[in-house]
Amino acid sequence: MKIHIVKIGGHLINDRKSLHDSLEAFCKLQGYKVLIHGGGRKADLISNRMGVFPKMIKGRRVTDKETLDIVVMTYAGIINKNIVARLQSYHCNALGLCGADGNCIQSYLRKMVNIDYGYVGDINVKSVNTHLIKFLLKNNITPVLCSITHNGIGNLLNTNADTIAAYIAMSLSQEKDCEVELHFCFERKGVLRNVQDSESYLKKINFHLFQKMKKSHTITNGMIPKLENAFFAFQNGVSKVSIGLPIHLLNDLNKTILCL
Amino acid sequence: MKIHIVKIGGHLINDRKSLHDSLEAFCKLQGYKVLIHGGGRKADLISNRMGVFPKMIKGRRVTDKETLDIVVMTYAGIINKNIVARLQSYHCNALGLCGADGNCIQSYLRKMVNIDYGYVGDINVKSVNTHLIKFLLKNNITPVLCSITHNGIGNLLNTNADTIAAYIAMSLSQEKDCEVELHFCFERKGVLRNVQDSESYLKKINFHLFQKMKKSHTITNGMIPKLENAFFAFQNGVSKVSIGLPIHLLNDLNKTILCL
Repeated sequence: MKIHIVKIGGHLINDRKSLHDSLEAFCKLQGYKVLIHGGGRKADLISNRMGVFPKMIKGRRVTDKETLDIVVMTYAGIINKNIVARLQSYHCNALGLCGADGNCIQSYLRKMVNIDYGYVGDINVKSVNTHLIKFLLKNNITPVLCSITHNGIGNLLNTNADTIAAYIAMSLSQEKDCEVELHFCFERKGVLRNVQDSESYLKKINFHLFQKMKKSHTITNGMIPKLENAFFAFQNGVSKVSIGLPIHLLNDLNKTILCL
Repeated sequence: MKIHIVKIGGHLINDRKSLHDSLEAFCKLQGYKVLIHGGGRKADLISNRMGVFPKMIKGRRVTDKETLDIVVMTYAGIINKNIVARLQSYHCNALGLCGADGNCIQSYLRKMVNIDYGYVGDINVKSVNTHLIKFLLKNNITPVLCSITHNGIGNLLNTNADTIAAYIAMSLSQEKDCEVELHFCFERKGVLRNVQDSESYLKKINFHLFQKMKKSHTITNGMIPKLENAFFAFQNGVSKVSIGLPIHLLNDLNKTILCL
């Protein structure tokens, strides 16, 4: 079975119209598909409303207990369920999941070395429940995963959505009967040569070029872990990995595609 | 197949220990089972934190757009996912759902007569997706439903959890191969003869007695719709309906059982 794994995040989630357009594009993909979404700025807005201000240590956000509750409410609650309801209205039989649902993805509390990240979960490599995902897909159900996992002993943890997408894609691609394509969708056309020029996206990128662009600070900030996740999946059995706009999900010419 | 439908609500949800005890009791039920939960006071606490104060019209709470967002976050988000993670830790393979997930339960906006209840959904009688529920159960997955439904055109709606429990029980009981028992669990031993005396629970109640106790104001407030839902299910094919404490789920002698 061929499976498309689509991750949507960034500004696509923040803006209602962009989100709906992304979901429409997702629905146009034929065959088996899985959607993974991040949280955008919504959790920050709710945090602010509740008077909970992000705790930062050395520029990194810390997920304390209150923040964990807020991200669970936001990602698994309002964002996930509104996406599912919208997909249902497009006749896509979506079903929302976090990592605890059906024991979909287990993680462990990130080990504290110098920084205590709080309730952040790193995925247990072998824990992705590919059996459940394939079972849902084969029964015409489209899984919609948010970026909350669990540790198996009753606790929820906050996990990066790009990482979840990469692990799910990799785990499925290791099944004998699966061929997997992974698409990271966001508000840009792809990996930009020049961040000031939204048209300067690369058609192709290989690991060597990625390393070079990282060294020269052409690729910075959030694009680094995104590309690390993308290459991780590409180097572990995923047959195609792309980065770009959701409207170009079906169009290989207008996005960045990972290559050898 | 014999299916136990268990609804937990009220103070059981508010208090962490009561909730965990209820979930442990639920896990001890053998065979096919479905959990339905309400929201307790958690949504009010979050509302207050966010500076959203419940809008009341003629003593009835109105679900405006902001309140809808809060109940979705609370019921489908933090409560549902924490319950699922806890059940997983007890080796019960739970999977959380709202009505939009897998098109589980559709509803329509409650018709405005004299009161505008806001985003409240009344269940479409034939909409309960018994196929999905049975399909999950047969595959060793325990559905955990929260009290959020959808209207099929992209909107989530707030629906009473007792009503959801009654409709799911009724819908499943109308399937040829299903026998259904419905248990309403809360912080009392059953339907009380005297609300001041927690030991005064009835062992049995029939519809006639319920009507009499309603007339004499012995049964009041929230117990009225709860019993209406219970009798609705009992009169529509559910083979046993009980009301009482979760620790007595397996013990018919210590709760109120509906009878003819």
